Amino acid sequence: MIQIAILGLGTVGTGVAKVVAENKRQIERKLGEPLEVKTVLVRHFKDGLYRQLMTNDFQKIENDPEIRVVVETIGGVEAAYEYTRRALEAGKHVVTANKQLVAEHGCELLELAKRKNVSYLFEASVGGGIPILHPLTQCMAANRIDEIYGILNGTTNYILTRMVRAGATFQDALREAQEKGYAEADPTADVEGIDAGRKICILGDLAFGRQMDPEAVPMEGICKLSLQDVKIAQRAGYRIKLLGRAVRLPGSGRTAYVAPHLIPEDNPIANVEDVFNAVMVRGNATGDVMFYGKGAGELPTASACVADVMECLQASPRRDEIGWDGGTEGFADPLSLKSRHYFRIAGSLADAAAVFGQVEVLSENGETAFLTEAVSGQEAAQLSQSLKVLACMRVLA
Amino acid sequence: MIQIAILGLGTVGTGVAKVVAENKRQIERKLGEPLEVKTVLVRHFKDGLYRQLMTNDFQKIENDPEIRVVVETIGGVEAAYEYTRRALEAGKHVVTANKQLVAEHGCELLELAKRKNVSYLFEASVGGGIPILHPLTQCMAANRIDEIYGILNGTTNYILTRMVRAGATFQDALREAQEKGYAEADPTADVEGIDAGRKICILGDLAFGRQMDPEAVPMEGICKLSLQDVKIAQRAGYRIKLLGRAVRLPGSGRTAYVAPHLIPEDNPIANVEDVFNAVMVRGNATGDVMFYGKGAGELPTASACVADVMECLQASPRRDEIGWDGGTEGFADPLSLKSRHYFRIAGSLADAAAVFGQVEVLSENGETAFLTEAVSGQEAAQLSQSLKVLACMRVLA
Repeated sequence: MIQIAILGLGTVGTGVAKVVAENKRQIERKLGEPLEVKTVLVRHFKDGLYRQLMTNDFQKIENDPEIRVVVETIGGVEAAYEYTRRALEAGKHVVTANKQLVAEHGCELLELAKRKNVSYLFEASVGGGIPILHPLTQCMAANRIDEIYGILNGTTNYILTRMVRAGATFQDALREAQEKGYAEADPTADVEGIDAGRKICILGDLAFGRQMDPEAVPMEGICKLSLQDVKIAQRAGYRIKLLGRAVRLPGSGRTAYVAPHLIPEDNPIANVEDVFNAVMVRGNATGDVMFYGKGAGELPTASACVADVMECLQASPRRDEIGWDGGTEGFADPLSLKSRHYFRIAGSLADAAAVFGQVEVLSENGETAFLTEAVSGQEAAQLSQSLKVLACMRVLA
Repeated sequence: MIQIAILGLGTVGTGVAKVVAENKRQIERKLGEPLEVKTVLVRHFKDGLYRQLMTNDFQKIENDPEIRVVVETIGGVEAAYEYTRRALEAGKHVVTANKQLVAEHGCELLELAKRKNVSYLFEASVGGGIPILHPLTQCMAANRIDEIYGILNGTTNYILTRMVRAGATFQDALREAQEKGYAEADPTADVEGIDAGRKICILGDLAFGRQMDPEAVPMEGICKLSLQDVKIAQRAGYRIKLLGRAVRLPGSGRTAYVAPHLIPEDNPIANVEDVFNAVMVRGNATGDVMFYGKGAGELPTASACVADVMECLQASPRRDEIGWDGGTEGFADPLSLKSRHYFRIAGSLADAAAVFGQVEVLSENGETAFLTEAVSGQEAAQLSQSLKVLACMRVLA
């Protein structure tokens, strides 16, 4: 019998308890012995299924030698950070879906775990139930990873899908997402690109082996996205998606950002709809590999946590493949990246051509929408200063 | 310094040597020490880059205590089987891309590996460079896997893509694939569904934990596929793809087969084109998860082999998560599976309705093409006996 503790009993915490109970047989067959939730840390006691397991005293978990793995589902940084440190110090493995904590303190917590000869795993922090961190660090270990981009936030992808399919405005689509429970009452972290930003930092950390400071990663959401641009892009054979993107640069440089992009419709990621997520990884040997599925939700996220619990228990203590260097040097401003740019301007094609030379016209209906040749973000910004820019986005090659 | 041997110097074997050389830095950073190809087993000596490493005597490898991992890229069963057994008996890890050997003898070789406290890994045998076996067995370990289906053969998918896009016949598209080097001179294993069949067996073995006998798995290819059906399906909002499919049945039953299917165009797998592969895995907690990428090719397949080499060297000797029970009982005939069926008949709608009751008409242009309600394969076969059937395929739900 292997015993674990869950910190927090929100959506993910409850899901972990459910998956452990429902898939008891599968788990026992793989582990060779049963897995059981012994203790659940909560702030306030509530009646229900797990009442007998609840405690509000973390020391009960910290000092319990029978508990081998702690699943942290509190979220945020403060308490989650403290309890994670203490659990690792106490020689317990820790598993989490907490992307903020991993993006901000993952490097330090992984080092602590290594010192204590235990694991700190967080597959569920990116892509919910979609296996991505593990395949990236293990199955693609013989590659130099050159680029990662993906639809990393289901809420915003749902909103964009509604704008495309039903012609809904951003505000209406957001309200609909809230009604369906896909968006939170305060949707800031989702629609401003912060959630996607934390995830692209974790992907970049693992892919390039060096810390990406979330503070240094520009994050642009979809709040300002106009229905007009969605329609123009659609007619021209593109879809607009919010992408997190991390790119290896020559030397040991790297960059990352979050922003809406125009994506050619024959790119498989252009057809990822609703609350689905997808991550494209470009390895120098494998080429483009895509991982697709539901990026959130109680059971998908929880099942990724439980798989990590099983992994901790089976893995050798030597886990050098997961981890990265804490230095942030070498991180470049993503404005240096070149790509075609989409512009919509209050002006004529002549205005556009005067600044950008040859452009591909997408719409001349009063305003002018066009695609530039490949230019850096700096160039795009500088050159367009003399134009009345209504919208500007990168085009994914 | 970690030393390995490669058996065979064809496409995959050469690719392994290239990946080890080209991604030296990445590999050393993850392993903590350099990786080197010490010996290459060939039948005939050839001049070239690896001339110094060649031997035609397997005993040189078997008896070399410095060689810790053997990468078998011979293919087929006979010599590959013998050398794999001997390498494992000699206490060396073995890594392969050989789907035939794994589908037919994987269970036995895994047991031998376990007895000798070494690993037998074969990520590259399914989906080339796409991580799939590892994510299935580890990242989705907390799921009960209910179904797996996928485009498992790039050659046939390329042929189908040309039939859809360019209106080419099967024969013309096959010739084009051969000219481009996507299909072999003898394309039987690809176009008859045998290659896809071996891969769906391996996926089923791992997903359901019990042997699928390739002999018992019906494999239908795309040789008989008519351009007419491709066009009718297309107009009705479907794509025709060759799928391998493995399904868990109530109790401990399971089934698997390979056949062309009609797939609704909003299923992401319908849009997988050219030589790309994709595998959809349905877990009871994660829901549908898809893995996508190039399913073949020198470097993708080789990089999956090298990742397995690294995994062998890092993993604990306890590898209970990979492996399955050797018994084949519980395997049911896939004819028992229910689904809608596509028929094209030399006859009228009235003929179709007389047999199947209400049907969805797709075409009445001389012949009649229609979709039935969900029926089992047996029912579809029995009911259609009185019709002049020109084509019959399952529709993926």
